[in-house]
Amino acid sequence: MSDYVNVAVDAMGGDHAPEEIVRGAVEAVNVDSRVKVFLVGRKGPVEEELKKYSYPQAQVEVVNAEEVIDMAEPPVMAIRRKKDSSIVKALNLVREGVCDAYVSAGSTGATLVGGQVIVGRIKGVERPPLAPLIPTENGVALLIDCGANVDARPSHLVQFAKMGSVYMEHVVGVKNPRVAIVNIGAEEEKGNSLVKETFPLLKNCPEINFTGSIEARDIPAGGADVIVCEAFTGNVILKLYEGVGAVMMKKIKGGMMSSLRSKIGALLVKPALKQTLKAFDTKEYGGAPLLGLKGLVVKTHGSSGSVEIKNSVLQCIAFKEQNINEKIKEKITLED
Amino acid sequence: MSDYVNVAVDAMGGDHAPEEIVRGAVEAVNVDSRVKVFLVGRKGPVEEELKKYSYPQAQVEVVNAEEVIDMAEPPVMAIRRKKDSSIVKALNLVREGVCDAYVSAGSTGATLVGGQVIVGRIKGVERPPLAPLIPTENGVALLIDCGANVDARPSHLVQFAKMGSVYMEHVVGVKNPRVAIVNIGAEEEKGNSLVKETFPLLKNCPEINFTGSIEARDIPAGGADVIVCEAFTGNVILKLYEGVGAVMMKKIKGGMMSSLRSKIGALLVKPALKQTLKAFDTKEYGGAPLLGLKGLVVKTHGSSGSVEIKNSVLQCIAFKEQNINEKIKEKITLED
Repeated sequence: MSDYVNVAVDAMGGDHAPEEIVRGAVEAVNVDSRVKVFLVGRKGPVEEELKKYSYPQAQVEVVNAEEVIDMAEPPVMAIRRKKDSSIVKALNLVREGVCDAYVSAGSTGATLVGGQVIVGRIKGVERPPLAPLIPTENGVALLIDCGANVDARPSHLVQFAKMGSVYMEHVVGVKNPRVAIVNIGAEEEKGNSLVKETFPLLKNCPEINFTGSIEARDIPAGGADVIVCEAFTGNVILKLYEGVGAVMMKKIKGGMMSSLRSKIGALLVKPALKQTLKAFDTKEYGGAPLLGLKGLVVKTHGSSGSVEIKNSVLQCIAFKEQNINEKIKEKITLED
Repeated sequence: MSDYVNVAVDAMGGDHAPEEIVRGAVEAVNVDSRVKVFLVGRKGPVEEELKKYSYPQAQVEVVNAEEVIDMAEPPVMAIRRKKDSSIVKALNLVREGVCDAYVSAGSTGATLVGGQVIVGRIKGVERPPLAPLIPTENGVALLIDCGANVDARPSHLVQFAKMGSVYMEHVVGVKNPRVAIVNIGAEEEKGNSLVKETFPLLKNCPEINFTGSIEARDIPAGGADVIVCEAFTGNVILKLYEGVGAVMMKKIKGGMMSSLRSKIGALLVKPALKQTLKAFDTKEYGGAPLLGLKGLVVKTHGSSGSVEIKNSVLQCIAFKEQNINEKIKEKITLED
């Protein structure tokens, strides 16, 4: 194997593929000499895009894949049938050990299914959760699980808490991360049956820094570093973050354009405002890892541009160098 | 009985009781001659507050209640033991038919429990949902249930959809309101087991205008008028709305204060911005009805000021005049 951190990138996935995907991959290798990108997709169009840029040739390789899995395709069927698709071929590179990680802005379903079926779970991991970083008032928090496993059981949530702690500590760099479970009240006796069963398990788990329940209101304020929840709830949280943010921005713009006075003011506040609000955009944090697999599988937003792709590729470096999967394995099996 | 719409107001409930509660009640009777308010609470302090204002004497009555139920008290116990509390006495006024409606900014738990135990459910209603209005881009939507019944069953959600439709159509005035169920994808096969079981029931329900699934992202944009969900999810939605809004406002203010240029701009945009964002504040819509009870029970935000109290009292008028409970009864029993 090479010394690079090898990342298989689905060049055909997402709203802006292959243009933005190729561009993001090139940007990543241009800023970091430790990473090599395998662009998986239709050779012709991908090489056409690559011609636009200059980059260290040794750090980019194109792997041909003729098929594309559509966003709307039923994932299980798509993974089984489209053996020559960019998603299946890219995941196979991880399975075979050619690549350490996989990044895709394409079908979430196909990535979730393919990640489990092709790459496979770490021994002991019951369910791999999808765990995006979401912005908070002064930083980020890990939302785990946000869509991989609906109707999860308490034991799954405990594993999410452990895996999330490893990720926040060693990839994001938050020491002794505060773990909380999403609940509808701060008291221990509150909650639905899943939360009530999970709470004592988390409380008695010595490997994590469990701080109790967190109400949704306190998530944006930064009330915890690892936000544990069942996938349905997590998905609602992630998407509502986006939805409320988008409508508020629209309202603010509308408000600013409502009078001559405010229009002049808008010109003056715009640059400062843009920067502040960028920090509160969920898309800025790009890749959500599907934790607990034998390689790193990262799903980025379907609307990802080159910046998100670049960031997703670069986050694979810390993941490999910090040996995250070994650390997850240790933490998971400790109590088995 | 009198011709007034008689509203029992918990004068002791909420962060700003009794001052703001009394003030809101007075404001309500001063703008509408159809309503009479029964202020339930400690006679001394309440009358002390009343002295500050002028108002039509016939429209305000003070009902003494010596006890107060604390926000933190276990609700079932509190309702059972504190017979002379403002909440219990106010709810009893509704039970006895002296009042048509009840408004409180106090303990949510005590109002939910007391509403069911003291006022009682309409025949046929399995579980009464708490249903606040939340702001959307161009109006409001009804979020039902947002905290009364965790771990609800599909049949409960169908009743929520029916009751919510009646409320949106006849109290808020949205003709043929669009009903959607909160889900993690737009397709019918998506969802957790509760949603998957409920979806076909809603689809086959002729009394509502069911439009399918709604993703959380599309709620703020106004994708539906009646947002049906289980209480845990609804509570997360309501509180995250508040949380994201609050942090974004803070970020915006911070961004505007970051340079001299932006500070000057901020002065110019402030008035326009304030008005726009006020329309997107969940607290502005004040009272959440607990639907399906024999009288109208309204819970307003704990931090309610006089405006929210006034609005909550005034909303009771449409509720009574439109004969909402009769309409709910009809719709619920239609299929039993």
